[in-house]
Amino acid sequence: MVTKSEQRRVALREKLTEAAERRIEAQGASALRARDLAKDAGCAVGAIYNAFEDLNAIVMAVNGRTFRKLGACVTGSLDGAEGQSPQQRLVLMSHAYLGFAADNTSLWRALFDIDLPVDGPVPAWYLQELEALFANIARPVSEVFPDKSPAELALMVRALFSSVHGIVLLGLENRISGVPRGRVEEMISQILLQITER
Amino acid sequence: MVTKSEQRRVALREKLTEAAERRIEAQGASALRARDLAKDAGCAVGAIYNAFEDLNAIVMAVNGRTFRKLGACVTGSLDGAEGQSPQQRLVLMSHAYLGFAADNTSLWRALFDIDLPVDGPVPAWYLQELEALFANIARPVSEVFPDKSPAELALMVRALFSSVHGIVLLGLENRISGVPRGRVEEMISQILLQITER
Repeated sequence: MVTKSEQRRVALREKLTEAAERRIEAQGASALRARDLAKDAGCAVGAIYNAFEDLNAIVMAVNGRTFRKLGACVTGSLDGAEGQSPQQRLVLMSHAYLGFAADNTSLWRALFDIDLPVDGPVPAWYLQELEALFANIARPVSEVFPDKSPAELALMVRALFSSVHGIVLLGLENRISGVPRGRVEEMISQILLQITER
Repeated sequence: MVTKSEQRRVALREKLTEAAERRIEAQGASALRARDLAKDAGCAVGAIYNAFEDLNAIVMAVNGRTFRKLGACVTGSLDGAEGQSPQQRLVLMSHAYLGFAADNTSLWRALFDIDLPVDGPVPAWYLQELEALFANIARPVSEVFPDKSPAELALMVRALFSSVHGIVLLGLENRISGVPRGRVEEMISQILLQITER
């Protein structure tokens, strides 16, 4: 049986995660402060640490939601596109990835937050979400390269995802890439079509 | 004539930049504190703001040094490789980029620090260093694609750089890409050779 105190803890976790999501969206993960979250959720600062181990754990809870939304967005880009070539499906998914990153930049950045310990433990669900994203990319890639071994395919999928990620990342930082959004889409298409040209 | 007070200001800028470089290398740019830098440089906290506008300006001074070292490393990878194919030269430069990022991860990350204002003003020298890096990539790329217009080439150069950057970035975050360094080199070669295959 779930105790009342456990119910309250779950409700507080939910409230804190929602508050953190709004704050990360507005100011980025590095601006997250326990005091602000306590105010948003109407609890004492100390209560936060009964609900979560630390602020990092709250960011990871937000990342969990973001990952599910991102996954839905990328998968959704294929609705009605089942008949298209694998190359075209890769472009559609990548443009959806760019769109999600452009519309939710701070939340998307928090997924890859460079301030997290590089070799720290990663929750199992995080790796599962990542694997699900890679599985979506792997389908068209395996159609383009039917002769590659599973290990070669896995490496190609990671390389393709990382390439698109890099173009999106620098493309959204105008000061570095200096190209408008339409050109970022073009860069993605160009790279993907060039790579998957047979 | 340079006044004594100006000489002292230049010397303090130098000291603070060196101190900041050591601290960024050890802990990352986000851990930089004025108090620590003042202690390192043997000056009052207030003196920092006579030498630099703010902490961000010190990070940019460190980035200037890092960019020059990075440029020398990438250019140096072509020493004695002038006779190699443009594809092979792109791979050499990209592996040098990976090596520099792996050996100077915190300094390299500070170059692309996501906490800087995305559309804030960028010093002219910063853009010049970036252009110099792109010019190095443009040479072999124009040999591979002699028919592309200058605008198409510029887009391809940015797309290639961003792709390699993405592979290096996620490749250095083990928790996300889950592949060892040798495999990261392999991903880079695979993507570059696939893109530049004619």
